[in-house]
Amino acid sequence: MDLRIREHAEVLVDWSARVEPGDDVVVSVAEGAHELAVAVAEKLGERGANVVTTYASEEVSRAYLRAHDGEFDTAAHELALYENADSVLFLGGGRNTFATADVPGETRQAASRANQEVREARMDADWVSTVHPTRSLAQQAGMAVEQYREFVYDAVLRDWEALAEEMAKMKAILDEGSEVRLVKGGESASSATDLTMSIEGRTAVNSAASVAYDSHNLPSGEVFTAPYDPEGEVFFDVPMTLSGTRVRNVHLSFEDGEVVDYAAETGEDALGDILDTDEGARRLGELGIGMNRGIDRFTDNVLFDEKMGDTVHLAVGRAYDACLPEGEAGNDSAVHVDMITDVSEASRLEVDGEVVQRNGAFRWEDGFEE
Amino acid sequence: MDLRIREHAEVLVDWSARVEPGDDVVVSVAEGAHELAVAVAEKLGERGANVVTTYASEEVSRAYLRAHDGEFDTAAHELALYENADSVLFLGGGRNTFATADVPGETRQAASRANQEVREARMDADWVSTVHPTRSLAQQAGMAVEQYREFVYDAVLRDWEALAEEMAKMKAILDEGSEVRLVKGGESASSATDLTMSIEGRTAVNSAASVAYDSHNLPSGEVFTAPYDPEGEVFFDVPMTLSGTRVRNVHLSFEDGEVVDYAAETGEDALGDILDTDEGARRLGELGIGMNRGIDRFTDNVLFDEKMGDTVHLAVGRAYDACLPEGEAGNDSAVHVDMITDVSEASRLEVDGEVVQRNGAFRWEDGFEE
Repeated sequence: MDLRIREHAEVLVDWSARVEPGDDVVVSVAEGAHELAVAVAEKLGERGANVVTTYASEEVSRAYLRAHDGEFDTAAHELALYENADSVLFLGGGRNTFATADVPGETRQAASRANQEVREARMDADWVSTVHPTRSLAQQAGMAVEQYREFVYDAVLRDWEALAEEMAKMKAILDEGSEVRLVKGGESASSATDLTMSIEGRTAVNSAASVAYDSHNLPSGEVFTAPYDPEGEVFFDVPMTLSGTRVRNVHLSFEDGEVVDYAAETGEDALGDILDTDEGARRLGELGIGMNRGIDRFTDNVLFDEKMGDTVHLAVGRAYDACLPEGEAGNDSAVHVDMITDVSEASRLEVDGEVVQRNGAFRWEDGFEE
Repeated sequence: MDLRIREHAEVLVDWSARVEPGDDVVVSVAEGAHELAVAVAEKLGERGANVVTTYASEEVSRAYLRAHDGEFDTAAHELALYENADSVLFLGGGRNTFATADVPGETRQAASRANQEVREARMDADWVSTVHPTRSLAQQAGMAVEQYREFVYDAVLRDWEALAEEMAKMKAILDEGSEVRLVKGGESASSATDLTMSIEGRTAVNSAASVAYDSHNLPSGEVFTAPYDPEGEVFFDVPMTLSGTRVRNVHLSFEDGEVVDYAAETGEDALGDILDTDEGARRLGELGIGMNRGIDRFTDNVLFDEKMGDTVHLAVGRAYDACLPEGEAGNDSAVHVDMITDVSEASRLEVDGEVVQRNGAFRWEDGFEE
């Protein structure tokens, strides 16, 4: 076994999920994640945890969903499994990113609604999502599989403790700040960014790839909060796939906190569908600052793209509870869609008028220009 | 997809497990059983059942067990899953029948003991075991994979209703009987069989591959009961693999209902480990008579071998509740290990002194000699 698979398992079990002896752990194994599952099981055995492995096959799901009449129940046995779990580890890595492409949207939505209680029970556990580098994901990323393995392990096998310390600086700035301004020069007016938003009273998450930091992705490496009342223009130049459609070069105009105009070079209809989902889909749910410098290229996979150093992302839709004051509801929506902008050049991020990041460099880094 | 996979799934879901709309079903998927899992999921979707798929990877188990210190707990989340399940479908079919060969016997036994409550919850559901014909199983059987597929589907895709009617005759004989004697000539004293056991008050199961018949294997095709107080010698000449070890030509001596002496030409240590699991492991749990003539050769797989016409098997360890009078506890053990003897020649099976089967032929069959 590639030694890096064992290191990945160790980071996942010890740093990310903080598994303790006697913990009841569910390991969800995608079709292509067998080797990582073996390494994770070894680590969980060492820790003395109790393990149930589930088979998260998209081909199995597709067959089930397409054959079903659409009147889904809550699965009592699945609910009982997750209500009794301390940790849930999702080992992604399928064999075809379009494996469920021919499942009707309404079937998907009906299943998702029936599954809400199970999903909530899962999220109440210490859950962590990661991926094993499969050929299918390499293909999505436009890479050879060996090359993609390097990419994934560069992103995952980091000094998380050191990164958490660095990210704490950004969290402190956002927690103390009231207003964020993102400015970026574009080649034309429609590709320029100048957006102001409020973060007063909101709490940033130091997303250091560990449940101990309210962070549930491995890799992670971003600091995010829940902004509101955006005003201005923003341009997202990082390509993405939304509901199976390629979307590129998105421009959004905000007035009074809402998207009032939008455009995209490709995939404008898919973008429009998302913005029309509900009222909250036109408001902001997240501002995130990518700080994982182990990720050095875009791979059309949000788990990696949004964490990349030299990027900032915003999400329309639902805000995360962890960013909100106790008992306060943030922006609500059925969607949460991240869009990313490259800030490596001609850009600055200001908090209350002070530049925190310029051309990708943070103010505590060498090469930062006030 | 091979159409026989869909037929297999249909027999499993409808004839064997009798799945109804709204049932909570666990599907346990071995490493090589993906295609059957897809077909079963499709059928379960059609029936409107709720499905959790578990990943029954022996490589994952091996890694976990070898890394563990051996102090196993009952897994509360796994117990909750099975306590809330209506049906459990085990789709066997691994990629290496020796995948757990290097797990120490004592680790295996400790895990098995800790798992007893979970196992009982699973057995309380409508469970069915079957296998998908993988290359590994073909290899174990000494066949090409296409040839092995023919073998499996010949055994599985039968007229189960007709076989159930024939087996009802054997069940009636055993239900009315008090004492069974199995006699078989061997080349030497140590390879001869003359074993007497009581079946008074016990109920035989017409194992017609359906939970409606208290039968939990697909294929099945045996009639079995729970004998006790065995006395005498028995020789098992059908080779088998126990806990990853080849075991061949087993001889057991019973006195006062317990194994007092044992030997095996190969694999004697593995046999000893099993007999030493607990007190019940030295007593009988089952007497079974193979009646599936769709199975025409030994394949080193107990699921098939014990059902083959012209064979009789005994299990040490746990007795099945279905064979016991209401409220009476039968032999209890963490293990249940079947051992098979070929009765096609020089053999007779007597119930209360009357010959029921001689040289493989049943008394209602052509060619039977009183």
